[in-house]
Amino acid sequence: MRYPRSIRLLIEEFKKLPGIGEKNAQRLAFYLLGAPAERAQALASSMLRMKETVRHCERCFNLTEDQLCDICLDPGRTEGLLCVVQSPLDLMAIEATGQFRGSYHVLMGVLSPMRGVGPEDLKLSELMERVSEGNVQEVIIATNLDVEGEATASYLVTALAPLKVKITRIARGIPIGGSLEQADSLTLGLAIDGRLEL
Amino acid sequence: MRYPRSIRLLIEEFKKLPGIGEKNAQRLAFYLLGAPAERAQALASSMLRMKETVRHCERCFNLTEDQLCDICLDPGRTEGLLCVVQSPLDLMAIEATGQFRGSYHVLMGVLSPMRGVGPEDLKLSELMERVSEGNVQEVIIATNLDVEGEATASYLVTALAPLKVKITRIARGIPIGGSLEQADSLTLGLAIDGRLEL
Repeated sequence: MRYPRSIRLLIEEFKKLPGIGEKNAQRLAFYLLGAPAERAQALASSMLRMKETVRHCERCFNLTEDQLCDICLDPGRTEGLLCVVQSPLDLMAIEATGQFRGSYHVLMGVLSPMRGVGPEDLKLSELMERVSEGNVQEVIIATNLDVEGEATASYLVTALAPLKVKITRIARGIPIGGSLEQADSLTLGLAIDGRLEL
Repeated sequence: MRYPRSIRLLIEEFKKLPGIGEKNAQRLAFYLLGAPAERAQALASSMLRMKETVRHCERCFNLTEDQLCDICLDPGRTEGLLCVVQSPLDLMAIEATGQFRGSYHVLMGVLSPMRGVGPEDLKLSELMERVSEGNVQEVIIATNLDVEGEATASYLVTALAPLKVKITRIARGIPIGGSLEQADSLTLGLAIDGRLEL
């Protein structure tokens, strides 16, 4: 004798989620079994609702439930300063700093020959088009500081060059609370190169 | 700007599950956002299906999708040997040993004056009725070995006494791989009392 079929099926579905193993999946299934029916209904319907309603902003590819996202619709955001990020989560990380009042463009990935991701798989032509419109004065490239993010940044510099726009890259350096002794020498070298006058 | 509303709502629902915090809930929500719609649909429908179909066996209170559970319906299980457990999960733990071929009775809890659980809250009258039918020769009490489980076992011994049935308790002793040095003295004393001839 094993669990009734519908419990086993639910456990299998939970196990497909990231970071959920057999034991965790069992615990979740039995929790829901014992919980009021409304709990399972609320979870199920919020999953389906999210899949139905969330889409990408037609302008910047941020997540939204409308045609354009909150940021693109905000008249207080500077169109002249355009920050290019890999994913909506990176955009949200920058928003969480509360320091940036420009606009964004989400590439929806990075160039990765290893994984077969080329320029045509990213929102690059859309970026070129936005910059071509002439309102953008500066493009801040905020892709990750890893190999793929740096390669994508280099590609963007070349691609944007004909458009005569100022291109900047987020600063590389020692993180707050970090120690010079433990920093890798590449980062430390870049931190010295990028020093600011006090 | 924060996540779109439907993502936030889903994160809140995930956080209500045991062992799922803010970070995990975000990870699950964004995983489902990126996954094919069928993934969310399968998870949602298997949750709802389980809540609809799973109920308790009318005889032993094990989990089932029918009137009687697989074990109660199995003609190969001895009705004369009845194992009393606290929950369907304990039943499944015993089934996993593959050693027990008798029947079960799930109490659906233990006596707990602290939490206001009395005999009338458990499936006790149903147990008495089953034993009264006269086919049961031995009742094995397999409640937990903690205070509440032991108190429930004592209660069962008294309650079943008039029915003139053999009553046994699962063995208390040192677990496999356990060391005598690390065992508590109560367990060790019980292990000596319960010694078996080799």
